Amino acid sequence: MRDFSRDHRWLSINTATVRKQRGQDWPLLQILDACAARDIRAVSPWRDQVAAAGLQATARKLREHGLKLSGYCRGGMFTDDDATEQNLRALDEACELNAPCLVLVVGALPGALNGQAQHKDIASARAVVRDGIATLLERARERGMPLAIEPLHPMFAADRACINTLEQALDVCDELDPARSGALGVAVDVYHVWWDPKLYAMIERAGGRRILAFHVCDWLTPTTDLLNDRGMMGDGVIDIPRIRAAVEAQGYAGYSEVEIFSMHNWWQRDGGETLDTCIHRHQRCV
Amino acid sequence: MRDFSRDHRWLSINTATVRKQRGQDWPLLQILDACAARDIRAVSPWRDQVAAAGLQATARKLREHGLKLSGYCRGGMFTDDDATEQNLRALDEACELNAPCLVLVVGALPGALNGQAQHKDIASARAVVRDGIATLLERARERGMPLAIEPLHPMFAADRACINTLEQALDVCDELDPARSGALGVAVDVYHVWWDPKLYAMIERAGGRRILAFHVCDWLTPTTDLLNDRGMMGDGVIDIPRIRAAVEAQGYAGYSEVEIFSMHNWWQRDGGETLDTCIHRHQRCV
Repeated sequence: MRDFSRDHRWLSINTATVRKQRGQDWPLLQILDACAARDIRAVSPWRDQVAAAGLQATARKLREHGLKLSGYCRGGMFTDDDATEQNLRALDEACELNAPCLVLVVGALPGALNGQAQHKDIASARAVVRDGIATLLERARERGMPLAIEPLHPMFAADRACINTLEQALDVCDELDPARSGALGVAVDVYHVWWDPKLYAMIERAGGRRILAFHVCDWLTPTTDLLNDRGMMGDGVIDIPRIRAAVEAQGYAGYSEVEIFSMHNWWQRDGGETLDTCIHRHQRCV
Repeated sequence: MRDFSRDHRWLSINTATVRKQRGQDWPLLQILDACAARDIRAVSPWRDQVAAAGLQATARKLREHGLKLSGYCRGGMFTDDDATEQNLRALDEACELNAPCLVLVVGALPGALNGQAQHKDIASARAVVRDGIATLLERARERGMPLAIEPLHPMFAADRACINTLEQALDVCDELDPARSGALGVAVDVYHVWWDPKLYAMIERAGGRRILAFHVCDWLTPTTDLLNDRGMMGDGVIDIPRIRAAVEAQGYAGYSEVEIFSMHNWWQRDGGETLDTCIHRHQRCV
């Protein structure tokens, strides 16, 4: 297991962690400057932030600072009407930004995210998702862009992602990429998987070849909001080092990406303070 | 599959559904009167409500109305310091009230429910829980009182129950009661398990012998509170009839128990209105 205590060379900042500080959007190019000023070497930006900053301007800024991506957020949402178009664009952008993978939040019951679920058949939503990944995978292979399925916590099964366990994600990987080519894998986010009694067995099953990204934050007790009350590493109950050790034992040697949606705490602070805290906690609690 | 549309003979009311209406506790004996007045035939009371009403007074009232129990809520919390004492009392009470089973909410990381988790080792919490069930099972067998492990939604893994899937619960059942004696089984609550990609496979694995209780409510989109924003059947995205059909296909022929914790909606209404709605929706949406 790598020693993270001395520096933060393996820290990546998911830019949603500092997307809106004290009620104001922090523009992506400024976030990248702030990361570079702290010797952060990698980020994972969100599509809407890139769109606001401009794709080319973002690419330039990344080059200027020598910043790498740990992933690109995100493709997926395969049950949406415009899924195909959106995913091809996401693929283009991921290639343009030299992302190591396009992260997939796969979508769930159509309409549920707006409180208007069109049906209750989660099995059919899962079939649509599987087919959507299969189709996108062909295009992604052509471009040499790996797809990382991110299983989301079961509390998001209705509205955000109907792939909810590593086991389920790996079943899809095994079906669509039985050769373990590297074109399809998973993003392991401790927030989504920490509770799973089969977590360690599934990390082993995934192996280094299938683990394309590793995300960290923490589970707070109590958690006051399903979406936007994630904790800073060390403030919650997830045994993050144990999970990281398991992932690295399979050969994962990439970035550890901090992704914290925190409406009432970390989004209410100065963005620089939040970044500094990420660095500090990454050295001590990851 | 039984026809629930013509009457509500298989409806049971978990008394937490109407425990505090418009900010005031509704006393259990009054709840039982209100249920009986509506020809509801079964209830599942909570220990604190029984304690407030008095065990003997509760037993008398149940007899007076000919009300059955569909379960007794609850034992478990095996990681608490006073677990043994509390569980033996719960067992006594369940026997006194002629419950068909004692429902177990098994507990999780000690202290987490108060925001002060003593450790982050969920595997060790699970071991404590397994041992606690094993010990309680001996006493429960002597009393002829079946224990129903209720897997709770993974969003409760930190603070309420570290058994979070039917698969996990059935693994414990198979280990501690390999003969499938009927002394140990599961409570299937649609709220906790609806998202699970292995749900139907695990209902089949459980079989009629292991399914000791069936609870219904609904998953709202959005869900605004992890604990107390459960929906009335029909208001959410759970395909309840499909799950009931699967459970009944295994031979389950018991009550369908409505258990809704609803801080902002159903607890804010007149208790009679909430009960009437339960009856109405039970006929149409379960």
